[in-house]
Amino acid sequence: MACLKGVNAVMLDISGVLKDTADGADVAIPGSVNAVNRLKEAGIPIRFCTNETTTTRKNLVDRLQKLGFSIKEEEVFSPAPAVCQVLRQRGLRPHLLVHPASEADFDAVDKNKPNCVVIGDAAENFSYENMNKAFQTLIAMDNPVLISMGKGKYYKDSNSLILDVGAYMKALEYACDIEADVVGKPSASFFLAVLQDMERVPEETLMVGDDIESDVGGAQRCGIRAALVRTGKYRSSDENHPKVKPDIIVNDLSQLVDELLAAGGKL
Amino acid sequence: MACLKGVNAVMLDISGVLKDTADGADVAIPGSVNAVNRLKEAGIPIRFCTNETTTTRKNLVDRLQKLGFSIKEEEVFSPAPAVCQVLRQRGLRPHLLVHPASEADFDAVDKNKPNCVVIGDAAENFSYENMNKAFQTLIAMDNPVLISMGKGKYYKDSNSLILDVGAYMKALEYACDIEADVVGKPSASFFLAVLQDMERVPEETLMVGDDIESDVGGAQRCGIRAALVRTGKYRSSDENHPKVKPDIIVNDLSQLVDELLAAGGKL
Repeated sequence: MACLKGVNAVMLDISGVLKDTADGADVAIPGSVNAVNRLKEAGIPIRFCTNETTTTRKNLVDRLQKLGFSIKEEEVFSPAPAVCQVLRQRGLRPHLLVHPASEADFDAVDKNKPNCVVIGDAAENFSYENMNKAFQTLIAMDNPVLISMGKGKYYKDSNSLILDVGAYMKALEYACDIEADVVGKPSASFFLAVLQDMERVPEETLMVGDDIESDVGGAQRCGIRAALVRTGKYRSSDENHPKVKPDIIVNDLSQLVDELLAAGGKL
Repeated sequence: MACLKGVNAVMLDISGVLKDTADGADVAIPGSVNAVNRLKEAGIPIRFCTNETTTTRKNLVDRLQKLGFSIKEEEVFSPAPAVCQVLRQRGLRPHLLVHPASEADFDAVDKNKPNCVVIGDAAENFSYENMNKAFQTLIAMDNPVLISMGKGKYYKDSNSLILDVGAYMKALEYACDIEADVVGKPSASFFLAVLQDMERVPEETLMVGDDIESDVGGAQRCGIRAALVRTGKYRSSDENHPKVKPDIIVNDLSQLVDELLAAGGKL
């Protein structure tokens, strides 16, 4: 396909592209393990770009390896390490509203006398009490700083759609009259950091995701082509999104790799 | 004061103007019981305009009467009765995300096979599970309908500021890409219904509240003058709100009544 011509580097979303969650357990999406292998065998560099914040990066990689994926920790870009860098650069000490399983990513960070709030997909931790604590921490500041790990609207968990961090971010933004700093997709700095690490420019790179806004829209704003897969949280209405048009829509990652290699991806 | 000239009808917010909450119990704000009496003795009609949805209207009136307020149920305008009217008019069957103590206001409403979501200040009921249920109900609809009882950002409970329904409304709006229908303050239809009931026009009416946006901003958009009190959730930054300028700012309701009667309010 012409729309894939010249692509020689790929960014892959993880949840909904490589794997789904069923009854609380990870399940590889059919053909995706092999699709990653085929990309690697073709010599196409891959980075895995996820907004996953319900676990540490190390644990996520362990789980994907158990499913059979060829993936290394240094190939994975997730928001928590990027947030830690931002906190250091700006001298910020966070109050965390995150998933318990992701707290270890912030072990080295000074959390005394918080002067910002960091929010991730806290899942069950998005309790009434915890939301009020985060709000009270922000509203007590002269200039409230809210850092959000992604701004996803929802994601698929087993057979249900579940509210993602973006919804709770919006609640705090509205209550405090502020705008959050988003780290992770769809922020341009996140995509640019991945390009830098791959030593690639936008026009030779393709992002593959199931989130029409965070994955497809975010990448395209950086000049990166983007494919939407019909797996994960995909809904047919995504194909008529009022603002975002994917460069290509495929049934799944496996079909995308077929098309990419047929279009003359590196061999 | 000139800004109060010609006022001969008053709308009073309840929480933060008449009473505060301390350690879970209602406490009359000093001078407010007497202030209501003085208005009534001067022959000035009053309506109590509240976004309170953590109790039924009847229970709210009982509690205020126990604090010594001269108040009758028919003088109180709150969102739940207005919502029930909207549901009837539009043939809507709600999934409720409301405070358990306010559910009785919806006893007469058909709630089978919901085709809309009604959200109020659900307090502890704003759990992760309940927010996801409301979201899943909405996202499964072709044209999701969300009705919100008010859109307050926060309120004061004992000595803490607590997230109000507006924050959770924004979370659902964002996740579903929709705009809620707001019933209650600051919606114009709510203020206009109160004027109609008082048989008054906007320019002879004054709204008194502690919420710079819902009370003051909402009333002013209807041509109703509005006073901000420095009680309840008032914060000094409200006096420099970027968009809303109260017609008058007073320390409390008692001072407002002093000024109003001095300006020649009905005697």
